[in-house]
Amino acid sequence: MDTATIYHGRGKGKGFMRIAELSRISGVPVPTIKYYLRENLLPPGELTSPNQASYDETHLHRLRLIRALVDLAQVPVAGVKDVLEGLDSPTMPLHDKIGRAHRAITPQRQLPSTSEAHDAATTQVQELLASRGWSVERDAPALNTLIETIAALRTLHQDHLVDFLDSYAAAVESFTEIEVAAVTTRTSSDEIAESVIVGTILGETLISSLRLLAQESISAKRWTKPAGN
Amino acid sequence: MDTATIYHGRGKGKGFMRIAELSRISGVPVPTIKYYLRENLLPPGELTSPNQASYDETHLHRLRLIRALVDLAQVPVAGVKDVLEGLDSPTMPLHDKIGRAHRAITPQRQLPSTSEAHDAATTQVQELLASRGWSVERDAPALNTLIETIAALRTLHQDHLVDFLDSYAAAVESFTEIEVAAVTTRTSSDEIAESVIVGTILGETLISSLRLLAQESISAKRWTKPAGN
Repeated sequence: MDTATIYHGRGKGKGFMRIAELSRISGVPVPTIKYYLRENLLPPGELTSPNQASYDETHLHRLRLIRALVDLAQVPVAGVKDVLEGLDSPTMPLHDKIGRAHRAITPQRQLPSTSEAHDAATTQVQELLASRGWSVERDAPALNTLIETIAALRTLHQDHLVDFLDSYAAAVESFTEIEVAAVTTRTSSDEIAESVIVGTILGETLISSLRLLAQESISAKRWTKPAGN
Repeated sequence: MDTATIYHGRGKGKGFMRIAELSRISGVPVPTIKYYLRENLLPPGELTSPNQASYDETHLHRLRLIRALVDLAQVPVAGVKDVLEGLDSPTMPLHDKIGRAHRAITPQRQLPSTSEAHDAATTQVQELLASRGWSVERDAPALNTLIETIAALRTLHQDHLVDFLDSYAAAVESFTEIEVAAVTTRTSSDEIAESVIVGTILGETLISSLRLLAQESISAKRWTKPAGN
């Protein structure tokens, strides 16, 4: 807990701090904090004089959340704003909040793959969804990315990487179930929402770095470097 | 195959084309192709007159590879350049080529997590590597990202998402083994190198979109939207 560190707030009691202190504790530079305030990513502090505001632990927490999304998950600021708006909405259904998180981490560009490759990929993905019993919306951002990625792999003559799609999907489903089970240990709906969103986005970084480490370990064993390198 | 479509090269025989044709077939605008040529991402065409060059299928293939890395895997152009330089090197060991691909898709920024969270994360990751028998280099980019992500999740009070790290790692290892097995169906060392690099980078996009689809399907069943939404 950071409570001890931020105990020096002036006259406002426990946990209140000036922007300089918020910057020191969070490690986020003051100009960046001011930018997040202007962009409404961070709610305003409480005014203590016409040009001074005080901040509390909710600001510190939000600031850390923003930095994790921007620095680790590499979500652009516009995407972070979209995700946080969803998170803060008292009326938006959780499923839609999750949709915002998915869009924030999914590239939405069309690729120049050949049309045969694109058709083959679409068919393969439809068959995969049917065989695994995955029900997803037709405009799910990840659906387009999956189809485009398979089409790109085929266009680049890497069909052999796509042949194991069913096995990848089975492995992916197994850890997604673990992730969802972890989130449902939370109780309040606010806690569940934040946990789902953070888990969706940072879980991506977690899985990705685990995969690269597993791969490095396997590749070091198979394709060792020559001596002296 | 696109051979039929690019049969109209002038006087150069099968598969030769002007930049306009390369643009039409690849779907990449001429100014973007010229930018890739200037940046040496794309090798120069063969000069047919002082200000006209002709391109062949190797250019088309390279262009599609660049677009897949930029558009789907969202690798910055500098990272793409680094990866392609590795791929083109006749002397660089495959393990180092893979290292370039890993760096291209791994964020390298330090995050403001608390030092206790960072220490706990470092210990947890060291224990994980030991228990799974993963040997990775101390400066592996994904190692830092994994530690920072776990530290960030703990700082954001999402410890429950980290409790299942061993299970995630086991699931991730299982599909990484499938991926590596797929790559080793290739025979020549150039083919293996390109397949490993493309598989490393686009495999990330593949796994990520599969995960989001699995998650959407599970979340739709658990947290359904209200009627009429």
